[in-house]
Amino acid sequence: MDFKQAAKDTAQVITSYLTFQAVKTVLGQLKETNPAAAYWLNTFSSQTALQDGEAYLQALLQEQPDLAMRIMTVRQHIAEAICEFLPEMVVTRIQQSNTEHRRQHLERVTQWAEVESENINPEGDPEASSDSPVNPTAD
Amino acid sequence: MDFKQAAKDTAQVITSYLTFQAVKTVLGQLKETNPAAAYWLNTFSSQTALQDGEAYLQALLQEQPDLAMRIMTVRQHIAEAICEFLPEMVVTRIQQSNTEHRRQHLERVTQWAEVESENINPEGDPEASSDSPVNPTAD
Repeated sequence: MDFKQAAKDTAQVITSYLTFQAVKTVLGQLKETNPAAAYWLNTFSSQTALQDGEAYLQALLQEQPDLAMRIMTVRQHIAEAICEFLPEMVVTRIQQSNTEHRRQHLERVTQWAEVESENINPEGDPEASSDSPVNPTAD
Repeated sequence: MDFKQAAKDTAQVITSYLTFQAVKTVLGQLKETNPAAAYWLNTFSSQTALQDGEAYLQALLQEQPDLAMRIMTVRQHIAEAICEFLPEMVVTRIQQSNTEHRRQHLERVTQWAEVESENINPEGDPEASSDSPVNPTAD
């Protein structure tokens, strides 16, 4: 496992996601103050993929440099405000989510085992469940 | 700007991305040790969207619980190994990338201004560009 590459790739994904968050924020502000500009930015953003934040900004800089500068400022602001909290949030989230998946799985397996055991041996006859996992004579 | 919500949403995006990284890692391991399982997981992963890591794991737990458990363990391992480095990587990346976008933009604007000034005033006649913001006496 190449952790260095994984960290780099993850940082790139976060950067693009924060660019998207910044676009959403600026769009929200423009809707209040300059609906025409909001409409323009919305159209531009639906035509230009936001998957790659840098390519998006490069394209926007050619069309509306002021908006691109504003989005860059906002994404830096968001990054500085939230990044320090992310490691603990992510690790905790994954731990809790893993625990929950395991719990649900165990619950399902236990229920199946109970149902199966009832099907195999509906009247408590120990000989009814010799080879087959499901008793062919049940019901 | 709702930073708390932005942090939550970003943590969710990272969690799903690390799930994807874990699937990639397990796929790489299986290709070496169990090509049939690798083929199965690859097919499953191309049919089940990995955009939502939790939904993906839930679906996989129904089909192949062992593989799902392994992916969960790997994603937690990756998260614990790389998350602490992400805040500095992301903030630095955004700062550097913003600086680079601004530099490139400034360079383009300067080049345009030079070209414009040459076009407006090709022979250095100061009266040729009275209204232009570009310095008429340049060159």
